[in-house]
Amino acid sequence: MPSPTQRPVTIALDAMGGDFGPDVVIPAALDILSDTEVNLILVGQEDVLRERLQARNADRHERIRLHHATQTVNMNELPSQALRFKKDSSMRVAINLVKTGEADACVSAGNTGALMATARFVLKTLPGIDRPAICTTIPARRGHTHVLDLGANVDSKAEHLLQFAVMGSVLVNAVDNIEAPRIALLNIGEEEIKGNEQVKQAAALLNASPIHYVGFVEGDGIFMEDVDVVVCDGFVGNVALKTSEGVAQLIRHFMEQEFKRNILTRLAGLVALPVLRAFSRKIDPRLYNGASLLGLQGTVIKSHGGADALAFANAIKIAMLEVQNAVPQRIAKHLAALQAQRQAL
Amino acid sequence: MPSPTQRPVTIALDAMGGDFGPDVVIPAALDILSDTEVNLILVGQEDVLRERLQARNADRHERIRLHHATQTVNMNELPSQALRFKKDSSMRVAINLVKTGEADACVSAGNTGALMATARFVLKTLPGIDRPAICTTIPARRGHTHVLDLGANVDSKAEHLLQFAVMGSVLVNAVDNIEAPRIALLNIGEEEIKGNEQVKQAAALLNASPIHYVGFVEGDGIFMEDVDVVVCDGFVGNVALKTSEGVAQLIRHFMEQEFKRNILTRLAGLVALPVLRAFSRKIDPRLYNGASLLGLQGTVIKSHGGADALAFANAIKIAMLEVQNAVPQRIAKHLAALQAQRQAL
Repeated sequence: MPSPTQRPVTIALDAMGGDFGPDVVIPAALDILSDTEVNLILVGQEDVLRERLQARNADRHERIRLHHATQTVNMNELPSQALRFKKDSSMRVAINLVKTGEADACVSAGNTGALMATARFVLKTLPGIDRPAICTTIPARRGHTHVLDLGANVDSKAEHLLQFAVMGSVLVNAVDNIEAPRIALLNIGEEEIKGNEQVKQAAALLNASPIHYVGFVEGDGIFMEDVDVVVCDGFVGNVALKTSEGVAQLIRHFMEQEFKRNILTRLAGLVALPVLRAFSRKIDPRLYNGASLLGLQGTVIKSHGGADALAFANAIKIAMLEVQNAVPQRIAKHLAALQAQRQAL
Repeated sequence: MPSPTQRPVTIALDAMGGDFGPDVVIPAALDILSDTEVNLILVGQEDVLRERLQARNADRHERIRLHHATQTVNMNELPSQALRFKKDSSMRVAINLVKTGEADACVSAGNTGALMATARFVLKTLPGIDRPAICTTIPARRGHTHVLDLGANVDSKAEHLLQFAVMGSVLVNAVDNIEAPRIALLNIGEEEIKGNEQVKQAAALLNASPIHYVGFVEGDGIFMEDVDVVVCDGFVGNVALKTSEGVAQLIRHFMEQEFKRNILTRLAGLVALPVLRAFSRKIDPRLYNGASLLGLQGTVIKSHGGADALAFANAIKIAMLEVQNAVPQRIAKHLAALQAQRQAL
């Protein structure tokens, strides 16, 4: 294993992206700076950013640098439009800084499609990767599970699922320090049907690969403790992720409804509050915020568009962790090894 | 609208199916008989069933009839094997009773693949249906949402999604008494990617159909209140369903863990217990047990394999509701109208 990079890391932040732009990015940045050694480049309207920093007495912070960008990519903008007409957007410029080496990674809460398209265009994919994938952690009984792809690719072929598996395995090995991450394919349980063609073929490819492939899991397997990475097509992964969020919201909604029913239930709620809070922390989506765009020649982290400062800071931490553990370089190395193994056969 | 059937309904129960066979089916049957007019045919090992009924003083119940079947389909048996070698299974015989008209519907907790294959072989699909689908209700903010397909079909074509939409629309119209059920296609939110080919084509077909198609929803849309039916490929639907179950289990697990942490949290749990129970009832999977096999010339309901008596009784209620509302006949009528409309174009 390559030794982690110990020099100070520099992260470029798309300070204008997401639903809240600098209102979230600046507090998150200051928060991160207070307890880590990281250097940050805030990319966006320089005057706006400077004013916000001044308001917090942080305009002369030695580890913050501003980088001007005149445009902003809207949350609903088509990726192709952003690529064509927003060449000086905070998102694009932040990614450019990764390309030129001024930053080690970038974090954006901007729209996923535009971020993926721009990152792919500017940074290019790693040799051996046809399509980059989006990967995030989801809480599980013990710790968490990494799931990919979450929507960058639809109609993925078996070969793509294999590439996702390699990337997921390398990521978890690097950031969670697990020697041989357990990789599963997301499937359905019906006998004889046993998945679609793509999944059947992917299982064969994974079995023949050096990856620690442990077989199929169904949707509920994501939340168990027996796998580290769940691999699936982006359409399926996105549905699984959004469905999970929907169930968690529904349960929260019903629970609040029940505790608000009358004075007695409100009192019961007060008594139970510390317990309910401790419980909520375990599934707090903010602590899982930050999806990795894997397969690129550089580290790009997507924050949820509606993320608050706590959540955005978490995405910055993920970016740091991936840089310190040289994730793109490791993925490239493993892909090369996989291809060498295939050619030798 | 055809007027609902008011004559007493007869339901055949696969009394040997599921993880618990008669241990669950008999209590569920007696429960249902105590408050509805239904006639039940218990299909399975006659001596075993008679003995169990005797033990409950119910062997002479005027609305229970026993029907002998020598075999049982195992939970892991391949559908093709069940079809070929289990011609006298409780599952097959129960379906035969629907075919001959002795029963109006059947309910089985046996394995889904075998049930679907056998039902399709014995009852045949309705004219205009290529593939039957599995449909169930999922709790939502207000009431519930019907979702199909849940795993009978993978790699569905757009035309199949249209057929699922027709079936879902008719079902909800019939059983929930909603004039024009709001039908949505399950999709992912990325701009420009906006779903895979199948979903894009299905959207065009649905727009051109008489169905009240309201557009795309993402995974979390299943749990909102703005759609009645969510249509998707069986692979995707199965993942969404199992993922939902997984999240609900994870949340229950974490909540129990927190309330069991120490004596204080246990006390808080006691105080909150009535509220937590009321909340649990809202998402109790037993009250959603019973998936409809739609598109067949007859009514077949699949109960969860691990269902208890309360849950199995719910599946029987669903069977009754579909018979009383002539669901297969209505689906056939709507399909004929759809085809006439297409030919007129």
